[in-house]
Amino acid sequence: MPEAATAPAALGDSEFDRDTAVIPREPGVYDTDLSAGWTIFGAVNGGYLLAVLGRALADTLPHSDPFTLTAHYLSASRPGPAVVRTETVRTGRTLSTGQASLFQYDTEGREVERIRVLASYGDLDALPDDICTSAKPPAIPPISQCFGPEDGPAPDADQQPIAERLMLKLDPSTIGWALGQPSGKGEMRAWFGLADGRDADPLSLLLAVDALPPTAFDLGIAGWVPTVELTVHVRSRPAPGPVRVSITTRNLAGGFLEEDAEVWDSEDRLVAQSRQLARVRRG
Amino acid sequence: MPEAATAPAALGDSEFDRDTAVIPREPGVYDTDLSAGWTIFGAVNGGYLLAVLGRALADTLPHSDPFTLTAHYLSASRPGPAVVRTETVRTGRTLSTGQASLFQYDTEGREVERIRVLASYGDLDALPDDICTSAKPPAIPPISQCFGPEDGPAPDADQQPIAERLMLKLDPSTIGWALGQPSGKGEMRAWFGLADGRDADPLSLLLAVDALPPTAFDLGIAGWVPTVELTVHVRSRPAPGPVRVSITTRNLAGGFLEEDAEVWDSEDRLVAQSRQLARVRRG
Repeated sequence: MPEAATAPAALGDSEFDRDTAVIPREPGVYDTDLSAGWTIFGAVNGGYLLAVLGRALADTLPHSDPFTLTAHYLSASRPGPAVVRTETVRTGRTLSTGQASLFQYDTEGREVERIRVLASYGDLDALPDDICTSAKPPAIPPISQCFGPEDGPAPDADQQPIAERLMLKLDPSTIGWALGQPSGKGEMRAWFGLADGRDADPLSLLLAVDALPPTAFDLGIAGWVPTVELTVHVRSRPAPGPVRVSITTRNLAGGFLEEDAEVWDSEDRLVAQSRQLARVRRG
Repeated sequence: MPEAATAPAALGDSEFDRDTAVIPREPGVYDTDLSAGWTIFGAVNGGYLLAVLGRALADTLPHSDPFTLTAHYLSASRPGPAVVRTETVRTGRTLSTGQASLFQYDTEGREVERIRVLASYGDLDALPDDICTSAKPPAIPPISQCFGPEDGPAPDADQQPIAERLMLKLDPSTIGWALGQPSGKGEMRAWFGLADGRDADPLSLLLAVDALPPTAFDLGIAGWVPTVELTVHVRSRPAPGPVRVSITTRNLAGGFLEEDAEVWDSEDRLVAQSRQLARVRRG
């Protein structure tokens, strides 16, 4: 049955959905299990973690779409059991505000907070159709002319299980760093999707904004760039098909940099904007 | 003694400092009194409120400079008594994370939450000097060629007490809306300072990012543009002298828009970046 085996995964029934599932323990409290499938060099991807927290808040709040979500990363998450504790801060007709924290357990079983989130949710389908935008989609070649991890030698493939789960094709003009020739511009652009063909939705956009290699690589900086804080605005429900992600760093100063991401869908709509503040730990 | 009467107010001893003062009631809890001096048409300025919350967190946390601060505006603040309740979420060597809520009182004396903030603080003076930036200061004419409320007919001056407390001089190319000719670009640029001459510091930068007229005016949209969420990154301690603030809206869609602000100091350093998500309520 090759057709069935290669059919795209359905929204709500994909590996991403299963790995971000949260199970209600009591009102507002959810158990989850962070999957090792979304790690890179042992670190759980920050966007994947956002999606787990985002799903818990979507269940807690009367509105289901994240409009604006801010996360502060407090300590390093590890694959394994976790609990998400949510609080409904305010409910309104158009928007609801909530807070959530993800905890894991230390060796004595005590809860250790990994991430704290503050977010406002609404209903993307209830928004009017008006658009007045000067933003333009990023100039990025067709997917067939872009490059993913599978196109290179990938000596550390076993250290990057997340790569198998993403369809990530980088703009050739932003991969010079991989060949020892960073552009120095602080840019990263890519086509993004889930490898199993699941379409984008607001939760997967939370993953998309933090799934590309750090722009620091394009600035010629090796080493780790841990996120301190990340804020995402979801502006529209994405149309089916891969999205384009464009990330820019304009200001690296005092050991910190910002990464500004835009996500554009197949109908040329700006569906998400994000900014994160990250630290530079030179390798 | 005219010299004394016109000397600039000192950092820490200005009207802005007095009006954002917080008085410890018990550990982590602060009383304050929101001043009517920072209102416009009865609404308390969102940046002034951020500064009040920012000051409470600076007192609670072991670090005193806001590096990244996110606020969700839950209900309309009014001049008068308020209480700020803070929580220390995590303390680290370089960064500490805290949360704060500002409450006021309903007619029965019950606390009503106005704003919730999540923030990470550090020490700006401890950062290394490295800068690698492609960001450029905004092109804005000298102060003498820019315009403030005092330069116009100002029919509603008594409705804008905040205007007396700010030195706000708008770039002539972004004030067409005041003459019925908005540019349609969604831009607003101004020189910004405190009217009493107090120099900028990280707390006044929290005010600066939300002190200009809304970019919606430059898009030809009248009416109210309430902030849903605002995130500020303070990237450097500002040098003495007025700062330049540049605000841009690129995407108005579905009744929401983002406002991206940059603040540049007199030494051409990008000292703060902010983004807010705001709703458009057409007038």
